[in-house]
Amino acid sequence: MTDSTPIPTPSVPAPDILRCAYMELVVTDLAKSREFYVDLLGLTVTVEDDDAIYLRSTDEFIHHNLVLRKGPVAAVAAFSYRVRSAEEVDAAEAYFKELGCETRRSKDGFVRGIGDSVRVIDPLGFPYEFFYEVEHVERLAWRYDLHSAGALVRLDHFNQVTPDVPRACRYMEGLGFRITEDISDSEGTEYAAWMRRKPTVHDTAMTGGNGPRMHHVAFATHEKHNILYICDKMGALRISDRIERGPGRHGVSNAFYLYILDPDGHRVEIYTQDYYTGDPDNPVVHWDVHDNQRRDWWGNPVVPSWYTEASLVLDLDGNPQPIHDREHKSELDVTIGADGFSYTRAGDDEGSYHGEASKGFKLGNQL
Amino acid sequence: MTDSTPIPTPSVPAPDILRCAYMELVVTDLAKSREFYVDLLGLTVTVEDDDAIYLRSTDEFIHHNLVLRKGPVAAVAAFSYRVRSAEEVDAAEAYFKELGCETRRSKDGFVRGIGDSVRVIDPLGFPYEFFYEVEHVERLAWRYDLHSAGALVRLDHFNQVTPDVPRACRYMEGLGFRITEDISDSEGTEYAAWMRRKPTVHDTAMTGGNGPRMHHVAFATHEKHNILYICDKMGALRISDRIERGPGRHGVSNAFYLYILDPDGHRVEIYTQDYYTGDPDNPVVHWDVHDNQRRDWWGNPVVPSWYTEASLVLDLDGNPQPIHDREHKSELDVTIGADGFSYTRAGDDEGSYHGEASKGFKLGNQL
Amino acid sequence: MTDSTPIPTPSVPAPDILRCAYMELVVTDLAKSREFYVDLLGLTVTVEDDDAIYLRSTDEFIHHNLVLRKGPVAAVAAFSYRVRSAEEVDAAEAYFKELGCETRRSKDGFVRGIGDSVRVIDPLGFPYEFFYEVEHVERLAWRYDLHSAGALVRLDHFNQVTPDVPRACRYMEGLGFRITEDISDSEGTEYAAWMRRKPTVHDTAMTGGNGPRMHHVAFATHEKHNILYICDKMGALRISDRIERGPGRHGVSNAFYLYILDPDGHRVEIYTQDYYTGDPDNPVVHWDVHDNQRRDWWGNPVVPSWYTEASLVLDLDGNPQPIHDREHKSELDVTIGADGFSYTRAGDDEGSYHGEASKGFKLGNQL
Amino acid sequence: MTDSTPIPTPSVPAPDILRCAYMELVVTDLAKSREFYVDLLGLTVTVEDDDAIYLRSTDEFIHHNLVLRKGPVAAVAAFSYRVRSAEEVDAAEAYFKELGCETRRSKDGFVRGIGDSVRVIDPLGFPYEFFYEVEHVERLAWRYDLHSAGALVRLDHFNQVTPDVPRACRYMEGLGFRITEDISDSEGTEYAAWMRRKPTVHDTAMTGGNGPRMHHVAFATHEKHNILYICDKMGALRISDRIERGPGRHGVSNAFYLYILDPDGHRVEIYTQDYYTGDPDNPVVHWDVHDNQRRDWWGNPVVPSWYTEASLVLDLDGNPQPIHDREHKSELDVTIGADGFSYTRAGDDEGSYHGEASKGFKLGNQL
Repeated sequence: MTDSTPIPTPSVPAPDILRCAYMELVVTDLAKSREFYVDLLGLTVTVEDDDAIYLRSTDEFIHHNLVLRKGPVAAVAAFSYRVRSAEEVDAAEAYFKELGCETRRSKDGFVRGIGDSVRVIDPLGFPYEFFYEVEHVERLAWRYDLHSAGALVRLDHFNQVTPDVPRACRYMEGLGFRITEDISDSEGTEYAAWMRRKPTVHDTAMTGGNGPRMHHVAFATHEKHNILYICDKMGALRISDRIERGPGRHGVSNAFYLYILDPDGHRVEIYTQDYYTGDPDNPVVHWDVHDNQRRDWWGNPVVPSWYTEASLVLDLDGNPQPIHDREHKSELDVTIGADGFSYTRAGDDEGSYHGEASKGFKLGNQL
Repeated sequence: MTDSTPIPTPSVPAPDILRCAYMELVVTDLAKSREFYVDLLGLTVTVEDDDAIYLRSTDEFIHHNLVLRKGPVAAVAAFSYRVRSAEEVDAAEAYFKELGCETRRSKDGFVRGIGDSVRVIDPLGFPYEFFYEVEHVERLAWRYDLHSAGALVRLDHFNQVTPDVPRACRYMEGLGFRITEDISDSEGTEYAAWMRRKPTVHDTAMTGGNGPRMHHVAFATHEKHNILYICDKMGALRISDRIERGPGRHGVSNAFYLYILDPDGHRVEIYTQDYYTGDPDNPVVHWDVHDNQRRDWWGNPVVPSWYTEASLVLDLDGNPQPIHDREHKSELDVTIGADGFSYTRAGDDEGSYHGEASKGFKLGNQL
Repeated sequence: MTDSTPIPTPSVPAPDILRCAYMELVVTDLAKSREFYVDLLGLTVTVEDDDAIYLRSTDEFIHHNLVLRKGPVAAVAAFSYRVRSAEEVDAAEAYFKELGCETRRSKDGFVRGIGDSVRVIDPLGFPYEFFYEVEHVERLAWRYDLHSAGALVRLDHFNQVTPDVPRACRYMEGLGFRITEDISDSEGTEYAAWMRRKPTVHDTAMTGGNGPRMHHVAFATHEKHNILYICDKMGALRISDRIERGPGRHGVSNAFYLYILDPDGHRVEIYTQDYYTGDPDNPVVHWDVHDNQRRDWWGNPVVPSWYTEASLVLDLDGNPQPIHDREHKSELDVTIGADGFSYTRAGDDEGSYHGEASKGFKLGNQL
Repeated sequence: MTDSTPIPTPSVPAPDILRCAYMELVVTDLAKSREFYVDLLGLTVTVEDDDAIYLRSTDEFIHHNLVLRKGPVAAVAAFSYRVRSAEEVDAAEAYFKELGCETRRSKDGFVRGIGDSVRVIDPLGFPYEFFYEVEHVERLAWRYDLHSAGALVRLDHFNQVTPDVPRACRYMEGLGFRITEDISDSEGTEYAAWMRRKPTVHDTAMTGGNGPRMHHVAFATHEKHNILYICDKMGALRISDRIERGPGRHGVSNAFYLYILDPDGHRVEIYTQDYYTGDPDNPVVHWDVHDNQRRDWWGNPVVPSWYTEASLVLDLDGNPQPIHDREHKSELDVTIGADGFSYTRAGDDEGSYHGEASKGFKLGNQL
């Protein structure tokens, strides 16, 4: 069952985290994954070997934003954050030790291109990494001759599935993250929250559900047409069935988005144009779970798989973490299907809405 | 029941049609419709009175592309085409008289801004108009100070619902239209066909269904972001429930599209970037009805309402035309739901496809 | 000296021309030209051999839009137009024979992929070709996997330099072209004119200057960002010195444009978003040569080389045609430099304008 | 003469600056300025009175990003930065007092919407402001119904003209800014430097020239087409002569840009798509002053006025600050005209370059 006891805040200071830096993904077929991330999405290969491929986006100057490692079970091996200095790696180790978490330190890093790092299984059960030392590589921002029409310029954020969102938020705030937006209902149930270190809408988000699992990893493009091109290309390659949701405009974050599925079913978001959140008093945006524009500003339906499917995460020995069920209400249940309802206009009550033909097709689409 | 006897080709020459020029729409609340077409979509008012509003797109130099006329029942009063010369209006009248159609001639036009015109109820039951004389107005292409972020530059095409698509096609070919693309199945059932006079993919299309009805009227933008802006604006205005389908990329026509519903439920498409079709040997593109990318290149589901809902059309006295049921197979039935199937890859058979999880959600989404 | 006697209109009908179809360019280094047109611009190679490369744009279904042929002198071997039927090739031959022009007929075509064709040296001294028979190839519009970020979708138009613009216009009107826009002055001097067969602003334009010469050949993209990407890529390849003019917005045509120079100095325009011109009474747009927004809507200066440089054209034996000087006023002289003036606002007279600081830098930039 | 003695670093800590927050501009005709910033650029009026107009961008939640104040002489009254907390305003005051700068404190702020602030004349002679307390207003990011086609989403940066760039940089680094890019030559002359607090390429830049003066204030858009629309609109309004430079792609910052002039000649940049610079070891990009792509990646010429013209800045009593001449080499002189040279390819030496025809027109354009 889910542990709902609050996570204590350590006496030692939290590490000073700069940003989400890279994800280490375990994939079952390296060649198929290379087709997806390199041939389709155009990520740049920094280095590769028989075991792993190291990829980066066009604006990046650190060694990689994504590691694809060959393994028996598709899963996430690490959510890796960069900290402000070498000392902050020590701070991270001390912080999680005091939390009683399992930690592992590697002076030479756990992957190529990264130096002294610490990996931990955090109180929510996720494999988190913290590092500062990293190999610099060419920032390809000016190398337009290498950019595809759907160029990914930056790793933007992670998204994690966890059963108890408020508990996760308090813990992440202790770790120094700030909430920028959330989804809840009038009874106080929290369904999801977005939190940041760098001044964008998020470095990671907590999505309520059975967890710990990885919901998606997101890369940013410069413009919306770059994302549309990825859809067009997937159509041309006859893999449109790997487009799970979108493209669309998020309510939360106000960004333009697309969700696609890699060969192992790992979800990747392509994302662009959220807003600056760097001021301490940045206004937090609260969304009603019944607002039909919260997850798609255009009111397009969220496909059920987007709520139910997610990737396993691994412990420090590489074994899948057990999944704990969410005991709070599910966003899927309260918004879609027989028991669910959503509105387009806050004024509309459930009744009027069932009578609304123009709304009907949207609902019908979700049943 | 539907008349399936072929429509004869008259002995007199067909009128030389230039292009679809404007639609006369009957709306039940002129003020609400003005909000939609002027405030939301940014069409320019050429002239208006208590009874009607005359609207045009930014590249247009003729008096209007759309007439909104106040009336008791939402419907289409005319699909109006411009012909090459004043004489061609006579040709049109003679052509439809020989077909035994009801025709009406007005030297001063049936609406403001248009001169000598003939209106007919064509063999498919649609109110068609043909004119040449028209009042010129300023082409606003250079008036960027008047353009909205979602500027509509041109009337692109009509789309008509008719029970017997092959019969309609043969008739339209007699009238001088050329087929550019169609959707059919291996048993020879035709579900829809696109046909043009100007060298784009279409001036009108025939969609199989209960008819005669108007499926939609389409305006073109310059770029895709213009269409995305219209969606964003509808979200901001909290009328996202009037976005019926899209935005997306069509398979047919290769254009980028959006379908929205006006206050009376008249369907409007916003459309951009199809291709030149002006050569006599322009290759006709045939789509398999089971190809899941035919109507949305990204494989996103077509909402059922898009297949079932359409607008009434009027006879020359302003009374709604009776609806005849389609007796051939329905695209909705053969592609969606228990009996339907679609594939992403021609290789996939129905079986393999049911086993395909990643495909499941797309289907599930349509059930 | 220039022949200013009007060109008679033949008694036989002019051929029914569909559109500009391809240009045959002579280049001095096939490998370098391939780098430019294939590696940089992303045109698709239909076929190539040691002597020539046949290229097409993404929307094209005929064999090619551009032939690069290896030769000793950079020049244009043919401006090739497609006619409506095989018979129209005969009509073209008869038409130019009656004009007393040298004509040559080849049942197998003059280049690969093209059938029965006639080539002529037209009354203005340009090598024109007319054909109908052509090999069909795959239209790559849906092949997004093959599209670059700067994808060229269509051959849009040619642009020719000729000493006497009014004389050229009367001749082209006889050949069935319609004027859409022109540039002249209050004294009646014509500096340039745009004329079309397909319903865009032009299939070719006549630019006043020493001729016959080829000013540029233009390809269309779908959106403006495609053109900006080509600039960015040329910067990345460190060939920004091959960007001659733009990107910018034309006054004439209202299209977005860029002019770049191939390795032989042949000028290529990348162009998008002009307007429909297919109605017989399409309003002709007249521009004052002194209107500083006529050639760049943003008032950015036209570099002198754009007015003075152009490509040689060949006779039917492959020898360069002699150049005749323009005797009328030059657009360069009347708009730039000591004797020239331009205004941003029609109200401004030359005097006020010299005193206008904000105008000064624009002028200064042109001196 | 210019003071070239290094500026000492105070013993007290520098204030923790978040970002550039707003500029207070003195304009001579409030109505004309309103036309420019509100009607043309679409900035939102938070509040206005007979004396001043307070404007903000669509993503902003603080009271304003720009104040237009009516005054006798066009100038800049304040470059205003937001600090992390109320205490940091005290820190700023102490910091500049120790530097011996004139400082003024106002608990109620110097302008509407802003609370406790300190204004100083900094060691370079610029009027700087620091504040934390501010009135929150609606963030209009989701209000697409209010966005123009050229929507400005964020204040991006300032740009200052100062005679001694290295001296200015050392001082700004003491104040906590980090250099991201610079322009220098092989002899060590520094011509310009970009420096940031928020993790973009800059919050302000130091441009070498006679100063203290304000070179420009920059606002960001989401996409490039938004900037192109502003150009198109200025053409439609027949004020294209207020487009000073661009649009283009910067080498420095890799951003897409446009420079326009307001009615008083204050220069405004519209800017989009630079890159994340938030890591402490973010690589500094050094540009050679002779690299012709440093300021325009496409090699388009920088108009002389862009180097020579700038706005006055005021002292704390509202009187224009005296201008000190730059004694180091001028970027204009070393790159343009008889003594200057630039190259497109680092390989090219000055000699080869004069022989390069394709380069000739670019140079000719600059003479």
